[in-house]
Amino acid sequence: MPKISHKGSAMPESPIRKLVPYAEIAKKKGNKVYHLNIGQPDIKTPQVALDAVRHIDMEVLEYSHSAGFESYRRKLAAHYQEQGIPVNLEDIIITTGGSEALLFAMGSTADAGDEIIIPEPFYANYNGFSTASGVTVVPVISGIETGFALPPISDFEKLITPKTKAILICNPGNPTGYLYSKEEIQQLADLVRKHDIFLIADEVYREFAYDGFEHFSVLNVPGLEQHAIMIDSVSKRYSMCGARIGCIVSKNKEVMSTAMKFAQARLSPPTFAQIASEAALETPKSYFDEVIGEYLERRNTLVSELEKIPGVMVAKPKGAFYCIAKLPVQNADDFAQWLLESFDYNGETVMVAPAAGFYSTPGAGLDEVRIAYVLKQEDLILSVEILGKALEVYPGKK
Amino acid sequence: MPKISHKGSAMPESPIRKLVPYAEIAKKKGNKVYHLNIGQPDIKTPQVALDAVRHIDMEVLEYSHSAGFESYRRKLAAHYQEQGIPVNLEDIIITTGGSEALLFAMGSTADAGDEIIIPEPFYANYNGFSTASGVTVVPVISGIETGFALPPISDFEKLITPKTKAILICNPGNPTGYLYSKEEIQQLADLVRKHDIFLIADEVYREFAYDGFEHFSVLNVPGLEQHAIMIDSVSKRYSMCGARIGCIVSKNKEVMSTAMKFAQARLSPPTFAQIASEAALETPKSYFDEVIGEYLERRNTLVSELEKIPGVMVAKPKGAFYCIAKLPVQNADDFAQWLLESFDYNGETVMVAPAAGFYSTPGAGLDEVRIAYVLKQEDLILSVEILGKALEVYPGKK
Repeated sequence: MPKISHKGSAMPESPIRKLVPYAEIAKKKGNKVYHLNIGQPDIKTPQVALDAVRHIDMEVLEYSHSAGFESYRRKLAAHYQEQGIPVNLEDIIITTGGSEALLFAMGSTADAGDEIIIPEPFYANYNGFSTASGVTVVPVISGIETGFALPPISDFEKLITPKTKAILICNPGNPTGYLYSKEEIQQLADLVRKHDIFLIADEVYREFAYDGFEHFSVLNVPGLEQHAIMIDSVSKRYSMCGARIGCIVSKNKEVMSTAMKFAQARLSPPTFAQIASEAALETPKSYFDEVIGEYLERRNTLVSELEKIPGVMVAKPKGAFYCIAKLPVQNADDFAQWLLESFDYNGETVMVAPAAGFYSTPGAGLDEVRIAYVLKQEDLILSVEILGKALEVYPGKK
Repeated sequence: MPKISHKGSAMPESPIRKLVPYAEIAKKKGNKVYHLNIGQPDIKTPQVALDAVRHIDMEVLEYSHSAGFESYRRKLAAHYQEQGIPVNLEDIIITTGGSEALLFAMGSTADAGDEIIIPEPFYANYNGFSTASGVTVVPVISGIETGFALPPISDFEKLITPKTKAILICNPGNPTGYLYSKEEIQQLADLVRKHDIFLIADEVYREFAYDGFEHFSVLNVPGLEQHAIMIDSVSKRYSMCGARIGCIVSKNKEVMSTAMKFAQARLSPPTFAQIASEAALETPKSYFDEVIGEYLERRNTLVSELEKIPGVMVAKPKGAFYCIAKLPVQNADDFAQWLLESFDYNGETVMVAPAAGFYSTPGAGLDEVRIAYVLKQEDLILSVEILGKALEVYPGKK
């Protein structure tokens, strides 16, 4: 039998997928499972986006331009300009989700064997994209004690080698919910300029900032134009995860012409979803006010309920819709499996994402879980109650 | 300024893109340009596919399963079974276009520095995917004299090294239009089994077979189950290039579980387009009869008109909707540029794809062009007339 590639063998499995068979077991036993593990919001997609697709008037479903429809890029540039981000349509390539934008950014900046520094815990698929690109992830650990704030900049600097091509951040963070301050972004900007490497910022949750904190984009740092690459997506902003539309944005013309060659090889981003995404730009402000308000209430509920459980520590998120909770267990992987396989409270249980999968350092985050607050409040309250009851009887407590 | 990656610098530009600025010049001069260079069919997308999207009934545009909707995979497997291809839903992963399926196939079988053997001329983006994957393309030349038939199997065998991980074919071929016979596929099958490497077949044009020839899939070779990987797409079959839906199909479970890890990293293929593609499976047979009939007439017209021009040699295609023509010019790149920049016949000219971009061997195919017969017959006749008039006066003839 022919051998698969080393890269293919090394591709990581999603930390959540491993639990899927156990979720099946729970369901087979007739237990209801609350999914605190997922990033699929229950929020309605804006009507204007769905209607645009319902009213398509075309006879041939053609390729678009490899960089995406010009009309969409033009409106998207105007949208960024309204947010104070000074970009034009030629600074934008529409991609198949933020995922493809990340692949293009990695491919344009790093070769096999090169290194990218990422503060951990980080979005687990960064591991997959790095492995697929042959790039080594060099983690800088951040901790729940600081709420996952930016680690000291000296921690980054001491990891920079001639192989380091970029620093990658997610802001606000999945899985941490941490929102970097302007000062933290400025520190990173100074560092990448000093060492002449790229700063790639995954800003797909940028609208989700709470408590009066404002999101500060890497594209807003004066003098960082040649170093900053921004990744964006419609998935969370408009609850359009299934569209698979994102973009890579940079003022660096060499980066954009390189990313464009990757874009041309795959021909074009999906046409229907571009039509929906272009229309989504007309979503009224009231939609976001309502959505952000809803997430804020969910966050407050989740955090206050979690803090009632003895031994649980939570990093209160300032953005996105995830938080990391430290649990009084020896191993959160085992606990998550046990919750599905062996526990129920009145025929109900919960599925959480063990946080170890979001760390690159072995042994880090073993007693932490990521909880997504994409469920409605009454379900969140019930879920946390179930979690509390489970911790009372779990045999693997520490 | 930070440096982009070597890989990014090495990413090839599309052989057609280079001509785009010259097409702009032609249009600015007021000349009409017939596009013989493109693979975007003018054929209507099946109504049933467009209607499925017009009638979507959803409130949240959610992710699908990373392998694609189960209902779609189930129907697609049944579709293949009807064609005599014995696959089940678990042998199929839905991808974002055939492009992504190729990336998954390369990523699952070859590492950076490994080699894949491809008969040339070949689809130019294979170069892009190889460069992105760090894989080296090893070409085996096929010639217009044999109509681009499979080169002697010994030509392949002498190129096999320990680094060779797969042979990649496109059947029927873009840009050649050649349809491999059952015997040719069998020869390749024997070779890959002997050396225990993979046979990846890009079969996206499989329905487009003419003159009573039948397409023979790599998945139809008994005993090749562990070596055969098939790439497919809805783009050409249903004139749905903008959907960006394809698939990777294999009976090799290790290949599929590896491809699945790449699929999970990018979350899911586009939802709207999957809905359209699933519905497209209901396209009535009459649609294909009409489309294939139309292409057949176009091919016949194109080939007979081209053969009237002195010094032009054509490899009559047996499938797909491209043909390679050898022209009495020193350099087809220069000729293609000259056609747009300096020539018109009654205010009209043509754009062709120089074939050199489809060869990997330097200097090969310099006097050849690829012509796509995706235009209606009267335009094809006019286009070839313009080509003939141009060759009468072109200063770079040989």
